[in-house]
Amino acid sequence: MSGIAIHEVGPRDGLQMETQVVPTETKVRWIRRLIDSGVDVVQAGSFVHPGKVPQMADTEAVLAEFGEARALSALVLNEKGLERGLAAGVGMLCMGVSASETHSRKNTGMGVEEATGRIVAMAKLALAAGRKVQVSVQSAFGCGFEGAVPRERVMRIARAYVEAGLRSISLADTAGHAIPGQVEEMFRELLALAPGIEAACHFHDTYGLGLANCYAALRAGATTIEASVAGLGGCPFTKVAGGNVCTEDLVHALQRGGVRTDIRLEPILEVSREVAAFFGREMPGKVCRAGAIA
Amino acid sequence: MSGIAIHEVGPRDGLQMETQVVPTETKVRWIRRLIDSGVDVVQAGSFVHPGKVPQMADTEAVLAEFGEARALSALVLNEKGLERGLAAGVGMLCMGVSASETHSRKNTGMGVEEATGRIVAMAKLALAAGRKVQVSVQSAFGCGFEGAVPRERVMRIARAYVEAGLRSISLADTAGHAIPGQVEEMFRELLALAPGIEAACHFHDTYGLGLANCYAALRAGATTIEASVAGLGGCPFTKVAGGNVCTEDLVHALQRGGVRTDIRLEPILEVSREVAAFFGREMPGKVCRAGAIA
Repeated sequence: MSGIAIHEVGPRDGLQMETQVVPTETKVRWIRRLIDSGVDVVQAGSFVHPGKVPQMADTEAVLAEFGEARALSALVLNEKGLERGLAAGVGMLCMGVSASETHSRKNTGMGVEEATGRIVAMAKLALAAGRKVQVSVQSAFGCGFEGAVPRERVMRIARAYVEAGLRSISLADTAGHAIPGQVEEMFRELLALAPGIEAACHFHDTYGLGLANCYAALRAGATTIEASVAGLGGCPFTKVAGGNVCTEDLVHALQRGGVRTDIRLEPILEVSREVAAFFGREMPGKVCRAGAIA
Repeated sequence: MSGIAIHEVGPRDGLQMETQVVPTETKVRWIRRLIDSGVDVVQAGSFVHPGKVPQMADTEAVLAEFGEARALSALVLNEKGLERGLAAGVGMLCMGVSASETHSRKNTGMGVEEATGRIVAMAKLALAAGRKVQVSVQSAFGCGFEGAVPRERVMRIARAYVEAGLRSISLADTAGHAIPGQVEEMFRELLALAPGIEAACHFHDTYGLGLANCYAALRAGATTIEASVAGLGGCPFTKVAGGNVCTEDLVHALQRGGVRTDIRLEPILEVSREVAAFFGREMPGKVCRAGAIA
C-alpha cells in the first residue's frame, strides 16, 4: 500500500458546503500549506456558476496564485466550466456523473444517460487539450433520495469512461451510504473493466464508516483516496451527508502502518485548527482532538 | 459474516468512565432494552472494589433483576471479584491481562507475567464452576503510556490462555491505537494458535478507526464484536481513549450488509438517546444523528 496517493478535496468539497465564504487569501494560505505537507493533489476550487456556488467564485483567482502547479485540481461541472478550466493553469480537471437519477437531475438537470454522454465528451476535450482528467461516479454506493443504486448503473458509467479512453476513475459515496464489503466488491469490479485503471475513492463519514471504506477500497486495489482537511464536507444535493473522510486522520492511520511517512502531518493539523477557528465550531477530525500518536 | 455476535459492553465499559453514577433502576431499564434488541450478550457490570469504581458498586443488584440470564456478562478483576461473580447469576465472566507493563501495573499492581498467571488461574476456576469464560488481552495493539506493544508479548498471553484450555479470547485495543492492517495480522495469528478459538475484538474510536478495525477483525475471522451503545466508553487507566465502537453504528452497518438483520435497531437507539439525555451531552454515535438508512 506504499503507492497510495492523497487527493485533498477540502478546499472545494468542504468549503462549497459552508455558508460563510472563505476569503481568497485565506484559501490560498490553506492550500499552500496543504501542498507543503506533501499530499499529492489539492482540489483548489470548482468552475461552477458563481451565482450558484458563491464560495467557489474565486477559483481562477486562487489558481492564479499557484502558476502552473501540477499538484492542483479543480472540478468542472459543464462546458462553460470546462472552458474556464482549460484557460486556467490547473494540473488536473475532475468531472463526474451521478449514478442516481434523482441526484443527477437535481445536480445537473439531466438524467444519468444524458449526463454520461456530456461528461465523456467534456473529458475527451480535456484529455485532447493535454490535461490530466479524473472522471467520477457520484452516488455510486447509494443515494439519499433513492436509497440503493443498482451496481450495474454504476458500472455502465464506468464502462463508458473506459471506452472513451479515460483511466483515472473515482467512485464517490456522495451520500455516505457505502459499507466496506460493497466497497471491496465494487472496486474489484471497476478495476477488472480494463488494464491500467487508476481507481480513486471518495467517502463521507456520515455513518462512521469513512476510514473503514477507505481500507476496503485500498484492499481492492484503489490507489488514490480523496479526503478533506478537518473532515470538512458534505453535498448540497443530498439529504444528510456527513463530512468527508478527514485528511489528517487518514494520513495518521496510513503513517502508523508505515505508509506515506513522507507526508508531514503538522501542516495539515495547522490548517485543520485554522478551519475550526474560522468557522467557530469543533470539526469532526479525531487526531486534532486526541493528538497524534508519537 | 452472518455468524457475527455482538457483545454490548456499554453498561460496564461505558458507565465506569462517567463521573455521574447511573441509578440501578436506570441501568436495569437500559440493559433490559439492550437484551430485547437481540444483541447476544450485555455486560451488566464489574466485580471491582466499590470504593475504586463506585459506578459498578451495584453490579450484584443489577444482575439480581435478571435471574439466571444467559445473555449477561460481567467483568472480574481479582479473586475477590471472581468469588462475587461465581455467587451471582451471570452467564459469562470476563477477565483479562494487559500486554502493556505500565498499563498492567497501573491497573493491577502486577507486571504482565504475574497478572497472566493470576488470570489463568482465575479463569480455570470459573470454567470448573461451569461458567462461560472470556479472557482478553488489553492494550493488545498499543498503549497510551508505552506506545507500541510487542506482538510477541500479546501472543505469549494468548498462548497461556490456549494452553489452559481457554478458547474464548478477546483482543482489546484499550488505548485506541490499532490500525486495520495490524488488526488483520494479529487476529490471523491468534486464530492460528489452536483450533476452535472464538475470537472477539474490542476497539475504541479514538482515531476514527473503530469500525475499520472491526471490519479488519471480521475479515481475519473474529466472530464477536464488543461495542457500546451511544459510543460510551474509554479507559480510566489510559491516556486519551475515545469511546468504544458505537453499537448502533455497528449494527446499522452490519444490517446494511445483510448481517444480523434479526437485531432490532430501535431499542438500541432508544437507549442511546436516553444515555445522551442522562449525561446531558451529545454522544459520538452517528446513526442517532443522521438517522438510519431505510
